[in-house]
Amino acid sequence: MSQHTKRSVCARNRTVFLSFFTSNTPLCPTASSTRTASALPLRGKVLTVDTMNANVKKVDYAVRGPIVQRAVQIEKELKEGVKKPFEEVIKANIGDAHAMGQRPITFFRQVIALCTYPQLLDDNKFPEDAKNRARRILQSCGGNSIGAYTTSQGIDCVRHDVASYIQRRDGGIPSDPDNIYLTTGASDGIVTILKLLTAGEGRTRTGVMISIPQYPLYSASIAELGAVQINYYLNEEKCWSLDISELQRSLHAAREHCNPRVLCIINPGNPTGQVQSRQCIEDVIRFAAKENLFLMADEVYQDNVYAEGCEFHSFKKVLFEMGPEYSSKVELASFHSTSKCYMGECGFRGGYMEVINMDPEVKAQLTKLVSVRLCPPAPGQALMDLVVNSPQPGEPSYQTFMKERTAVLSALAEKAKLTEEILNTVPGISCNPVQGAMYSFPRITLPERAINEAKAKGQAPDMFYCMKLLEESGICLVPGSGFGQREGTYHFRMTILPPTDKLKIMLNKLKEFHQKFTQQYS
Amino acid sequence: MSQHTKRSVCARNRTVFLSFFTSNTPLCPTASSTRTASALPLRGKVLTVDTMNANVKKVDYAVRGPIVQRAVQIEKELKEGVKKPFEEVIKANIGDAHAMGQRPITFFRQVIALCTYPQLLDDNKFPEDAKNRARRILQSCGGNSIGAYTTSQGIDCVRHDVASYIQRRDGGIPSDPDNIYLTTGASDGIVTILKLLTAGEGRTRTGVMISIPQYPLYSASIAELGAVQINYYLNEEKCWSLDISELQRSLHAAREHCNPRVLCIINPGNPTGQVQSRQCIEDVIRFAAKENLFLMADEVYQDNVYAEGCEFHSFKKVLFEMGPEYSSKVELASFHSTSKCYMGECGFRGGYMEVINMDPEVKAQLTKLVSVRLCPPAPGQALMDLVVNSPQPGEPSYQTFMKERTAVLSALAEKAKLTEEILNTVPGISCNPVQGAMYSFPRITLPERAINEAKAKGQAPDMFYCMKLLEESGICLVPGSGFGQREGTYHFRMTILPPTDKLKIMLNKLKEFHQKFTQQYS
Repeated sequence: MSQHTKRSVCARNRTVFLSFFTSNTPLCPTASSTRTASALPLRGKVLTVDTMNANVKKVDYAVRGPIVQRAVQIEKELKEGVKKPFEEVIKANIGDAHAMGQRPITFFRQVIALCTYPQLLDDNKFPEDAKNRARRILQSCGGNSIGAYTTSQGIDCVRHDVASYIQRRDGGIPSDPDNIYLTTGASDGIVTILKLLTAGEGRTRTGVMISIPQYPLYSASIAELGAVQINYYLNEEKCWSLDISELQRSLHAAREHCNPRVLCIINPGNPTGQVQSRQCIEDVIRFAAKENLFLMADEVYQDNVYAEGCEFHSFKKVLFEMGPEYSSKVELASFHSTSKCYMGECGFRGGYMEVINMDPEVKAQLTKLVSVRLCPPAPGQALMDLVVNSPQPGEPSYQTFMKERTAVLSALAEKAKLTEEILNTVPGISCNPVQGAMYSFPRITLPERAINEAKAKGQAPDMFYCMKLLEESGICLVPGSGFGQREGTYHFRMTILPPTDKLKIMLNKLKEFHQKFTQQYS
Repeated sequence: MSQHTKRSVCARNRTVFLSFFTSNTPLCPTASSTRTASALPLRGKVLTVDTMNANVKKVDYAVRGPIVQRAVQIEKELKEGVKKPFEEVIKANIGDAHAMGQRPITFFRQVIALCTYPQLLDDNKFPEDAKNRARRILQSCGGNSIGAYTTSQGIDCVRHDVASYIQRRDGGIPSDPDNIYLTTGASDGIVTILKLLTAGEGRTRTGVMISIPQYPLYSASIAELGAVQINYYLNEEKCWSLDISELQRSLHAAREHCNPRVLCIINPGNPTGQVQSRQCIEDVIRFAAKENLFLMADEVYQDNVYAEGCEFHSFKKVLFEMGPEYSSKVELASFHSTSKCYMGECGFRGGYMEVINMDPEVKAQLTKLVSVRLCPPAPGQALMDLVVNSPQPGEPSYQTFMKERTAVLSALAEKAKLTEEILNTVPGISCNPVQGAMYSFPRITLPERAINEAKAKGQAPDMFYCMKLLEESGICLVPGSGFGQREGTYHFRMTILPPTDKLKIMLNKLKEFHQKFTQQYS
């Protein structure tokens, strides 16, 4: 026992010594010498910003950054009766359809309710097709309960349904359920694949090519993993399209300092709203093949295509139509989600990824890796199943389902057009057509004086603009700097999700604000 | 255009050159020189086990490892009519209560069904208290839908309810909703905190102290993050209790090669089934304070305490009862989940963590980090709410709820006792009391010849044992080597979750097998 005590005292002294070097709070020698033997050593925190994971510090996620935090604060202030020049905050910062008033698809919610509380299977109020879907999902669950863990890769029958959906969508090109991994939203799948690909040190460190502007999940994950971000710029003048020559320039430059191994594409584009042509996708695949790049295709907006002449082409389909020289070689991971399209079920965190041409040994490692987190949420898996296995003609829920689906997509198409049209009437705002997805990413001209004032405050000029917009009009947008943009250009991302009436009000408020702002700083 | 072509060719040549060094598949110079200009460069995969993330390769997760994969295969074979010396596989490898036949708590599922399909709020079949809970949760959701993203830290009212629960549980010691983070199961929270804490290189790399045996989420996450695993051994002779002298030994040794910053405790213990005494917890806290360690308390089995004289004491409560010298200093994160206790709702991936004394700047970083993944699944958050805000006396659902809860916990208590008793009748098996959690971790004596045969096959001896058990009797357990154990000792982890009848059959089959195995190899 006395030996034990002695050892402890030794160790404590060592701690004091160590904490002197590792902690940020300097030790006070006087205090240290006057305290009694039983007192705790004086010390700072174990975990401080100086001693925490340095990669995490580099992470940035503008979609929920300072603007949104301020918006939440303003909402509280409004509730508390603080007077503002507006009645409510309109949040157009995030693709969160239900929060903007979109109603859930009835069939989907019926099936999930049935899976959750199977006693409802005896209820006449639920249509037979909903009950059949629920029974089938429950039969695939351990103990027939969605409260059981599923296999880590996802419920068997859901993965089969996903594969059938992809096969139908891609005109019969086969999809193997073994290549399907269900995920906790698309974000989870994207981070997992990036994680597998991140290796090397210094000049051999994995480089990841992402578009600018990009969805900041990519830059955030790259920072967290300590990979190297490689920017390629989309062509704003050509409706945010992707130029292969720019990919080539960007890759060329990156090879000087890292090992570029991954090319990420978001189509339809977030935040650009651009829809890629079949030709462009072919060119990208050819480029990836030639340059030995792993392709990641973020296709979560695959049903969100509005513009005439635009069509969604999956990377998988184009890859296979290019013939075996490509389809047998190019490694591709494609991502989908329950959060976007016409369903907008973000809260359920459902998603899947399909991996093509992945080395079987790597696939085994992937399966092992996802097993550590046990499984994606079962309700989200069930929802993903319904998205890929929706009511069919002849089934009792078909008509209601189609009516609801069409209503959402037509409203979005209308709002996409409206947004472009109204924004383009404002001098100093120029907006590309919103061909797809859920966002516009207009360019704004800011007066020199505003830019200087922002810089003096240490703010990005478009952050300064958006913050002022929020304070004066209650509109919450995300500055372009959060997505990346060409030096000297300024943008914001705005969702097209608010109900048409509110969207119109918002756009007109924005117009007014922009005019006033321009005047004020000119 | 010709310039573009020229650039591409250059780049292609560079790729061939690079891939020679980075890819594992050697280039064949003959093939390279004979292929046409338009053909793709010969190359291997971008992503191979040799070029993938090296930390991911080191990850191991026995709970879903080779034994379980073989069990799934055997189940398929049985379905296909392959004859086996058993009719079904009994999976006692994972704490998956519903898969083992446990029924969900009615009230919980009613509320989640109501949240999912709010039309049911008009249905007379649902009790008023269930409806009230659902309405309250929905009012906290964007657009009153659980399909909306929640705030990244979790739904406001749920975090408030969690804080109230903790305060009640801990005899009035205050809990601040701002310190509560909802998570995607407890695993998610544990990995997130470990991620924040991982820093440094070489001898300054973060060391994480974990018990041996441990739950392999810890070793897997430490490997993935590239942190340093520091083992401290639990005392099997003293019912798997924790000795402070062993913590001291382990820390002392680790300081030679890394920077120990974290001490992880699982209480009640997984896989040991041990419940820590209040005294032990006090000693651990004192040790953490003295040695400047961040405490992580995995308390997901807080309702699973069966043995007489045992009681659950939260680290938070003990910390605060030790007075301000400790409660104002020691950094603690405590984890809970919807997956265990009496509810066993693993599929919903619900959970929370409470952080105590976390540096405010680090907390801001934590909030930022979790925002990248947007939010934990909303149905899991709702379920967590019900666990911490269950029916109260006087509410219509109270009696049924209590009946169901008590039935599950009494059955578990009975099965804990049964397991210990039957296992201890087998010569060569010795089992500590299952005081809590859902597992027994008995020690098995293996004949020398069996050990040698296993080693010749490159298998851990207890893996060899468990694999044979699975093939001959259909019982699926996890070998002790998957959790860690003292050199030269062998164990397995077995859940106590199968229904009592099945558990008895399983234990008797196990007994028979062990006797046969011992005979065969003696």
